Amino acid sequence: MLAYDDLLAFERQTQALAAIAGRLGWDQETMMPQGAANQRGEELAAIEAVLHARRTDPQVGEWLAAIDATTLDDVQKASIRLIRRDFDRSSKVPADLATELARVTSLSHRKWAAARAADDFDGFAPTLAHVLKLKRQEAQALAVGGDLYDALLDTYEPGARAADVASMFDALRPRLVALADRVLGASHQPAVLNKDFDEDKQIAISREIASAFGYDFAHGRIDKAVHPFSSGSGADVRITTRTSLSDPFNCIYSTIHETGHGSYEQHVDPAYALTPLGGGASMGVHESQSRIYENQLGRSRAFTSHLHARMRALFGDFGVADAESFFHTVNRVSPGFIRTEADELHYNLHIMLRFDLERALIAGDLAVSDLPEAWNNRFEADFGVKVDRPSNGVLQDVHWSAGLFGYFPTYTLGNVYAGCLNQVMRRDLPDLDSRLADGDTSAATGWLRENLQRHGSLREPKDTITQACGTPPTVEPLLSYLETKFTDLYRL
Amino acid sequence: MLAYDDLLAFERQTQALAAIAGRLGWDQETMMPQGAANQRGEELAAIEAVLHARRTDPQVGEWLAAIDATTLDDVQKASIRLIRRDFDRSSKVPADLATELARVTSLSHRKWAAARAADDFDGFAPTLAHVLKLKRQEAQALAVGGDLYDALLDTYEPGARAADVASMFDALRPRLVALADRVLGASHQPAVLNKDFDEDKQIAISREIASAFGYDFAHGRIDKAVHPFSSGSGADVRITTRTSLSDPFNCIYSTIHETGHGSYEQHVDPAYALTPLGGGASMGVHESQSRIYENQLGRSRAFTSHLHARMRALFGDFGVADAESFFHTVNRVSPGFIRTEADELHYNLHIMLRFDLERALIAGDLAVSDLPEAWNNRFEADFGVKVDRPSNGVLQDVHWSAGLFGYFPTYTLGNVYAGCLNQVMRRDLPDLDSRLADGDTSAATGWLRENLQRHGSLREPKDTITQACGTPPTVEPLLSYLETKFTDLYRL
Repeated sequence: MLAYDDLLAFERQTQALAAIAGRLGWDQETMMPQGAANQRGEELAAIEAVLHARRTDPQVGEWLAAIDATTLDDVQKASIRLIRRDFDRSSKVPADLATELARVTSLSHRKWAAARAADDFDGFAPTLAHVLKLKRQEAQALAVGGDLYDALLDTYEPGARAADVASMFDALRPRLVALADRVLGASHQPAVLNKDFDEDKQIAISREIASAFGYDFAHGRIDKAVHPFSSGSGADVRITTRTSLSDPFNCIYSTIHETGHGSYEQHVDPAYALTPLGGGASMGVHESQSRIYENQLGRSRAFTSHLHARMRALFGDFGVADAESFFHTVNRVSPGFIRTEADELHYNLHIMLRFDLERALIAGDLAVSDLPEAWNNRFEADFGVKVDRPSNGVLQDVHWSAGLFGYFPTYTLGNVYAGCLNQVMRRDLPDLDSRLADGDTSAATGWLRENLQRHGSLREPKDTITQACGTPPTVEPLLSYLETKFTDLYRL
Repeated sequence: MLAYDDLLAFERQTQALAAIAGRLGWDQETMMPQGAANQRGEELAAIEAVLHARRTDPQVGEWLAAIDATTLDDVQKASIRLIRRDFDRSSKVPADLATELARVTSLSHRKWAAARAADDFDGFAPTLAHVLKLKRQEAQALAVGGDLYDALLDTYEPGARAADVASMFDALRPRLVALADRVLGASHQPAVLNKDFDEDKQIAISREIASAFGYDFAHGRIDKAVHPFSSGSGADVRITTRTSLSDPFNCIYSTIHETGHGSYEQHVDPAYALTPLGGGASMGVHESQSRIYENQLGRSRAFTSHLHARMRALFGDFGVADAESFFHTVNRVSPGFIRTEADELHYNLHIMLRFDLERALIAGDLAVSDLPEAWNNRFEADFGVKVDRPSNGVLQDVHWSAGLFGYFPTYTLGNVYAGCLNQVMRRDLPDLDSRLADGDTSAATGWLRENLQRHGSLREPKDTITQACGTPPTVEPLLSYLETKFTDLYRL
């Protein structure tokens, strides 16, 4: 066991250093003085260099070779599986390429932000082509002859394959498009908010709701950030939100979403802290938690009736008189251009568009110069609306400029997983709605904690969902949930 | 120049990692959730291990040996001098001892806090004896046959020697005791504050004053902390303060003090950033800046007349009707037990007491068991008051529990340096008081920036002061300043 113990001690220190790097990222988005950006860049580069050296340290390979797997229990086997995976992947990418990717994506982020502000895709195209070229090289190094896109997808959703995701998405897309069409054909218009909402009160109710959803402020905190995110694991998991004077739901549902991410990290078995098992299993599984908190729980008729009463108590009358109208307001369906503002129906259509386009880019079947036209054509087909400008289309998301090819599908995988979990959870908790109507989410969050969150990365992502649900994930529960909810809501 | 460039590139990364460790310390005192303390301990240990390995990396020794000093300019020579000093010192301390010291002082901090809360010196004595034993071992490793205390003092005030400090203090102590006696014999009683002070307004006026003293919020921020401190260097220098409903001066003067520390770091030549020259020259020189901001500027008759008007405008009448009474109030002299609450006269008496006792501890001339009696006797001799309990005496400061032997004298060195700087600055700026009376500190802070702050660690600490003043530091300017100020104030 000597090699195992040494390896885990080394890994523990690496995890602690990675946690520090994460904390710097949090600080950058919440606390850092504006003039410190360049210095912070050097700090992040320094700690990333330390982390890269540790991840590819030949000593790790020697420890891995020296470990006798037959002496390990299941938890130990899982740790070794994840360390080996990380070591193999890190070792496959040449150091020069890794450095070049870090440098180019750091620069391209600023160029993307400038291009989006100027609605100038052509000016950004050479940069995107450069990032794409490097990511294809990385994919070739990782794939070793296998599918390039799978190699990138594996970064965010270990074990997932693009072909499986594609067939899942093929089953989703026509029924979502059809459902969206029916909803948009209905005449119902939600009530309009008739006042501004004090931003300190928005933060106050967000804190109240985060607590109600089981977020533990003794091991976390909420701050404001331009783009809400969750950060950290174990004993220090911080979330962020944002406020808008005219739209309190942006703040409230961002908070519930990030509470899902943060609670998942907070609820992993403390015995796994600072080991490879100590965080969420994948981006997809993470998103399943943020989405089920936000949508299946937070936008349910039962919970919104509670939220409506709390908001009336806090803000007074705001133009939405009854709970049913309020339920409509927070579930408004609209074919907007922007993914991050999309409703439950359109969100997945946004993702499938990006998934198909980035697969084609990585496969070499689509040139960067042809990307805007491909985007716009697909958007019109699925949303029935023409894209008016690049910032409302191909330039809206940061992901590709940051080299995050393979990331997008995990959002919809998360929605699919959330659909599966919701179905089983509601079978196990028949009186859930009556509790949610009182603002009590503890039965739901307790169920998720017990069946999924506490296991962290013990199992592969898909196995994590299968274990929690009793059967492997399919798209049917999500479709059924959406069709029932919106057919009922819009009286279709 | 290859070895020099490689060494400086390595050092730059080390400095960036050290900046990260500093930022974690800031986070711990300002932002960290309470339940994250243990995890943070592991994070700090991990990055300290990385830093220690880099500081003692044999490659540093090889680079140093390969550099031809004759090819270097003055700035480069200064960098090499500081890197060599750090490498030599780090390499002298056995790794086992360094690890044991880190472990024991981390634990002893909690034991000290518990002992202070319980007023139980005897319970803490074995821990303190253990820390002392390890620090003496460290001093032996560092001193290589030389004076043990000097080896520790050199950590905080490079180049200083205890014998010189002692003769400086010997010249200070009798005149300070005599002056304090005369002041305390005077009948004058300062006005008493007659109301509470809104804590948000205290922070607001503190921000205003920090800006007025030249602190740059584009490269810094102010937060609340239990014990105010300054943290960081270069483009990201953060300060903290605290508020007390009944005592706004705690907040205001803590802020001005930390503004001195923070401004010093902010004003170092940006060309020195992330090099060994990029921070303050020593703890003593640092304290000279915090003290001259706080006392010679912030508690001057001229500036306090401005502060009085601002506070009246912000808080309304608070029982101190005129500027002269206000000047008295913020310069009240009282022989209190607690160092951190001491006035300008008694502060140095607190330090000299600790300096003499810790020198005796390190020399082996004083046993830990005899420390409380030695403390109490000396306190009564200098302050004319009997110590009533350990938390008001020997247990009040964190320093010894943290192993910071050799740190205390830098506080009074800082006061001595501030006295010297103030004398020359006022000679160079004859109309300074009329500017301070308008709240305009820019001439003073500009003088300090030009003559001292921008040079960072380019010169040895004492040379830094000598260069700024034109002559080597002596105690006379400080004594003259204090005798003039308090003789005048108390009409002695």
